[in-house]
Amino acid sequence: MNNILIIGCGLLGSSLLRRIHKKKIVSKIFIYEKSKKSINKFKKLKLPGTLIKRPEDVVSQSKLIIICTPMSEYKKIILRMNKSFQSKNIITDVGSSKLKSLEIVNKNLKKGIFWSSSHPIAGSEVSGPENGKQNLFENKWCVLIKGKRSNKSHLKFLKSFWNKMGSKTIEMTPDKHDKIFSITSHLPHLIAYNLVKSAQDFEKKQKYDLLKYSAGGLRDFSRIAASNEIMWRDIFFDNRTNISKAINLFIKNLKSFKRDISLKNNKSILKKLTQTKKVRSKIIQLKQDINKPDFGRD
Amino acid sequence: MNNILIIGCGLLGSSLLRRIHKKKIVSKIFIYEKSKKSINKFKKLKLPGTLIKRPEDVVSQSKLIIICTPMSEYKKIILRMNKSFQSKNIITDVGSSKLKSLEIVNKNLKKGIFWSSSHPIAGSEVSGPENGKQNLFENKWCVLIKGKRSNKSHLKFLKSFWNKMGSKTIEMTPDKHDKIFSITSHLPHLIAYNLVKSAQDFEKKQKYDLLKYSAGGLRDFSRIAASNEIMWRDIFFDNRTNISKAINLFIKNLKSFKRDISLKNNKSILKKLTQTKKVRSKIIQLKQDINKPDFGRD
Repeated sequence: MNNILIIGCGLLGSSLLRRIHKKKIVSKIFIYEKSKKSINKFKKLKLPGTLIKRPEDVVSQSKLIIICTPMSEYKKIILRMNKSFQSKNIITDVGSSKLKSLEIVNKNLKKGIFWSSSHPIAGSEVSGPENGKQNLFENKWCVLIKGKRSNKSHLKFLKSFWNKMGSKTIEMTPDKHDKIFSITSHLPHLIAYNLVKSAQDFEKKQKYDLLKYSAGGLRDFSRIAASNEIMWRDIFFDNRTNISKAINLFIKNLKSFKRDISLKNNKSILKKLTQTKKVRSKIIQLKQDINKPDFGRD
Repeated sequence: MNNILIIGCGLLGSSLLRRIHKKKIVSKIFIYEKSKKSINKFKKLKLPGTLIKRPEDVVSQSKLIIICTPMSEYKKIILRMNKSFQSKNIITDVGSSKLKSLEIVNKNLKKGIFWSSSHPIAGSEVSGPENGKQNLFENKWCVLIKGKRSNKSHLKFLKSFWNKMGSKTIEMTPDKHDKIFSITSHLPHLIAYNLVKSAQDFEKKQKYDLLKYSAGGLRDFSRIAASNEIMWRDIFFDNRTNISKAINLFIKNLKSFKRDISLKNNKSILKKLTQTKKVRSKIIQLKQDINKPDFGRD
């Protein structure tokens, strides 16, 4: 039973599929996908792996099971597969927030079954199996979650698995994970969506042709605001307590910026504008972004 | 007197210098720069053009004068050069906001002298002569401003000049310009600075090592938030009325997002998250950004 079962063949699922196949990690990869559109794409792309109709039927042959669906699907999947799950299955998921999604897992997963959650910090504004790529996880972090239902030896296995995917791993509690990513990922996405929404509102009201002039900043936000809406709705709902706190901090700071601007408070604004600059250098130093001006565009 | 005088040898000034030289547009380019650091870089880089110490001395030999300094320098430059300016000089600047900066121009520029303002929608998070490049303006918009002191034939000359720089041009009033760019450029920059500031505040409070995990969104904002602080202070102060309105709209929308998240209002949030998606496609269609997922990084 050394096979791998992937549930959900979107950007992440299909990237894992490509990588596992390329690195010849197991002889057999099962893949389950419920969307007809994605199944057709899978066939057209001739992706590796065996497409299956009933994931519960291959659980006994699968050592590792990776759930790559939106988090709002977890409950349905667990209830469907509970009967088939065995304690030796190493079950993980790739969801971007953990506290609430693991509450669903804890509540619904059959007794004696483990669930050791993962969060690879990799993604894109595009989704679907056609956009997956085998090097999506290369040099990225993957957070492994020590939760109520996780298992030490399973986490050890997952560490080695994600290393094979090209990632570095780190362990965190669900609480710490959700706090950190509310700031480094969830708030930025919300802000990007909100900025683009505000530009749309302004355009409608003023009847100006704005987007032609988006190269001065807006275009960067539009990329993030093009991300998958189901995935992001799930994250926003799931991590709502931390995100609400992050929004409050953001609005408080924005009002302070507005005051500086209205009062032309030179000292205060220059302090803000120079301090934030240091963050970019740190991010480049940590190899979390490309070291080229303007992301190397043009 | 077909020469060109560039005042300020930063990112934009040095990019113009490189382009004018490469395209052999004039035989002589004068360049004035007050910062010793930038003068040394200019010499080390062996940039083209004749470095001068007194810009007022070459005004009579220069048809086109391009001010590429921060907007807060305009008054000083005008007062210094007023005596030398002639009505046949085609004077322009490359500042990013127009209403207030042109008020300074109108108030201080000697009678009978024209000032036809430009705004090339091109830039980067890096600054200084070492980062300039001859193709910075290629396929970018350049807005030409019809203002109180602009001159029709000068604007026509500038249109042709910016075309040689590789740009498309469009004419606007200062009022329309400042409204549009408060949304497409100034607010996005302010928001990026504010997000990075909020992440710093959070990091300090929680003592978490955040930046390691910035690949999930924050890194994109950190690029914009690394932009030149003097230039952006000037823009924020100069266009403060429009930016304040933009901030108000942004906060109103953000509070609505927060409500949707707290109440788990599925219909309302999905409407927002899908509508914003369309903006990205339009921006790509308008060739205002690179048509590759994740800006083609990795």
